[in-house]
Amino acid sequence: MARPSRSIVKTDAPIVEKMRTLSKPGVASLAQGIVHWAPPDAAIDAAANAARDPSSHAYGADAGLPELRTALAKKLRAKGLVNAEIMVTAGANQAFANVALTLLDAGDACLLFAPYYFNHKMMLDMRGCRVEVAPTDKRLLPTVEATRTVLDGGATCVVVVNPGNPSGAVIPEERLRALAALCGERGAWLVVDNTYEAFVYGAEHVLVEGPHVVNLFSFSKAYGLMGWRVGYVAYDPALGPEFLKAQDTIAICAAQCSQRAALAALEADADGRWTGSRVAALARAQKTHVLRALAPLGGCVGAADGAIYVIAKLPREDDEAVVEWLANKHGVAVIPGSACGLPGHIRVCYANLDEAACEAACARLEEACVELANGGGPPPS
Amino acid sequence: MARPSRSIVKTDAPIVEKMRTLSKPGVASLAQGIVHWAPPDAAIDAAANAARDPSSHAYGADAGLPELRTALAKKLRAKGLVNAEIMVTAGANQAFANVALTLLDAGDACLLFAPYYFNHKMMLDMRGCRVEVAPTDKRLLPTVEATRTVLDGGATCVVVVNPGNPSGAVIPEERLRALAALCGERGAWLVVDNTYEAFVYGAEHVLVEGPHVVNLFSFSKAYGLMGWRVGYVAYDPALGPEFLKAQDTIAICAAQCSQRAALAALEADADGRWTGSRVAALARAQKTHVLRALAPLGGCVGAADGAIYVIAKLPREDDEAVVEWLANKHGVAVIPGSACGLPGHIRVCYANLDEAACEAACARLEEACVELANGGGPPPS
Repeated sequence: MARPSRSIVKTDAPIVEKMRTLSKPGVASLAQGIVHWAPPDAAIDAAANAARDPSSHAYGADAGLPELRTALAKKLRAKGLVNAEIMVTAGANQAFANVALTLLDAGDACLLFAPYYFNHKMMLDMRGCRVEVAPTDKRLLPTVEATRTVLDGGATCVVVVNPGNPSGAVIPEERLRALAALCGERGAWLVVDNTYEAFVYGAEHVLVEGPHVVNLFSFSKAYGLMGWRVGYVAYDPALGPEFLKAQDTIAICAAQCSQRAALAALEADADGRWTGSRVAALARAQKTHVLRALAPLGGCVGAADGAIYVIAKLPREDDEAVVEWLANKHGVAVIPGSACGLPGHIRVCYANLDEAACEAACARLEEACVELANGGGPPPS
Repeated sequence: MARPSRSIVKTDAPIVEKMRTLSKPGVASLAQGIVHWAPPDAAIDAAANAARDPSSHAYGADAGLPELRTALAKKLRAKGLVNAEIMVTAGANQAFANVALTLLDAGDACLLFAPYYFNHKMMLDMRGCRVEVAPTDKRLLPTVEATRTVLDGGATCVVVVNPGNPSGAVIPEERLRALAALCGERGAWLVVDNTYEAFVYGAEHVLVEGPHVVNLFSFSKAYGLMGWRVGYVAYDPALGPEFLKAQDTIAICAAQCSQRAALAALEADADGRWTGSRVAALARAQKTHVLRALAPLGGCVGAADGAIYVIAKLPREDDEAVVEWLANKHGVAVIPGSACGLPGHIRVCYANLDEAACEAACARLEEACVELANGGGPPPS
């Protein structure tokens, strides 16, 4: 008996697989999108207590813990989202899977802006959608012009990340509203991934809503709750029955204990100081080190006023070879721009190491950047 | 701005939504597929400890906690699965989502046997597959004949549940091997959902493997870990890179703390006694009560030698109306056969209440069954 012979390969190898081969002992990671801090103590206590609570062993409501949904509704209302139904998911990726299964069909044309979040591309490819990739502008922002062109061509969905992964760019309110209005006029969905909403540096993160707008959120980064797998999605209530189908067939519910941790984290950060102080410290310390390290390459591309990433332009196109060389020769891991539809660039994460470790990694990165700027690096591939 | 106008309705309303409206206070549930017991103490302790362990806050390996995968590989080898790669998922439903995104394309014809697990149908519908539904035999088992017919028609995937949800039927080894051989010959996938493998009464549960066979498993039922969301999937190692894509775009990893609970549960049940004693008690007590209650309808259909469900035939076709009447008039909830492709029947779960509560619910059910057998019930719909 043989494996069914037709090809099942629908998309490129995931970056997680590529990076695994580079993650050797001694390689400092500025690659994976994580934060170096632990969750609020209150979240850990809540989880430890919930572990012994019988309700944690039972399935919860598909849409999420009622108290958590209520708290999230309050939070979103304060940011102007007044008509949203909220569903708690096992992370923002699962929220996007709900969107892909619910709102999209195979063959639908979907717009991503390069540099895009690689998992959005991978999900849409697996879903069988036709992914249209448009370039961002000089600030690495999605443009109204490209959106209009692709919608004119029949696209039914536009996906943006705000603040951007991997662009690090915060979409200004006016631009975001224009994108939402355009999608609304053309009968297309606008999916906004707000995973990094807490990470803004001088810029303001805003939310837009509408019957065609779906907003995704995550507990992973701001609260250091990556391994607990909690995110959420906010959408027009009329979509509720459809989202429920995807939720029940994928997750049933996010882990109950994890939702207790998320609720406690949210409450511990009610005034925004818990995350705010950590984000401000990142900007002062780690981000500064990374920008200094990248200076030989001309620094970062765009404003880099949000999220936990900066994009740098390499003096050559073969970013994957450079990334391997960075790991093997200089002991520092970053993400190749090719994985995000932007060859000739790298994505550097500045949140996954504490300041001392980040500074040490940046010393290696700076040395490598000097070498690259002087025409060095791996042999051309 | 309006919601995009094209229809997004790809499948019937989920049964979870229908049942919610019937779950009023005072209604005893023999509906949802859950068990009445708590997880092993060791699993609860492990989770409470893991809540305070820094590794729980970080993303884990996509494929799962290495120790858990090792323990699962050992368990599966003992059941004859010698060449399987294992991936831990956020429940068996997410494992099926991985399968649907990885191995299937929109338009693929997939075979389900009625009565089918409603969420398999819902996922395949959302995926855009063409679901072919074939009848089971008198014992509610999938048949080789129907499989051959549908594969001759070009189907690329066959999905069975063993022991069956909702059939309660254990697929005999010979039948399962014949299905696997046939799928192998025709280049089709065989997906076997073994969620209820621990629940067998006299029958033997076996596993089959092959490059075209995917086996799904769950921690939810046997170990009472529903709310922790842990399952796993075993497949030919050559499929690993593809499964990794689905995993990373949906779950990234199952909740880390939940995986610690699952590992401890597995270890606490190394000799099978922990689950074995509970399953045996179900057969002695709850299952007996349910069968007695259904006797006025002629008892259950098929052997009912596995899982936690029995199917009963109603003396009328309008099972949805009967289910509403059962809840509203008699205070007992069951699942309508229509939700599983088998109108005129009901699915009764006998694991979700302890013996006393189950006995009380069965007294209500029996009274209703007598009424139905005598031509009573709701007005014909």
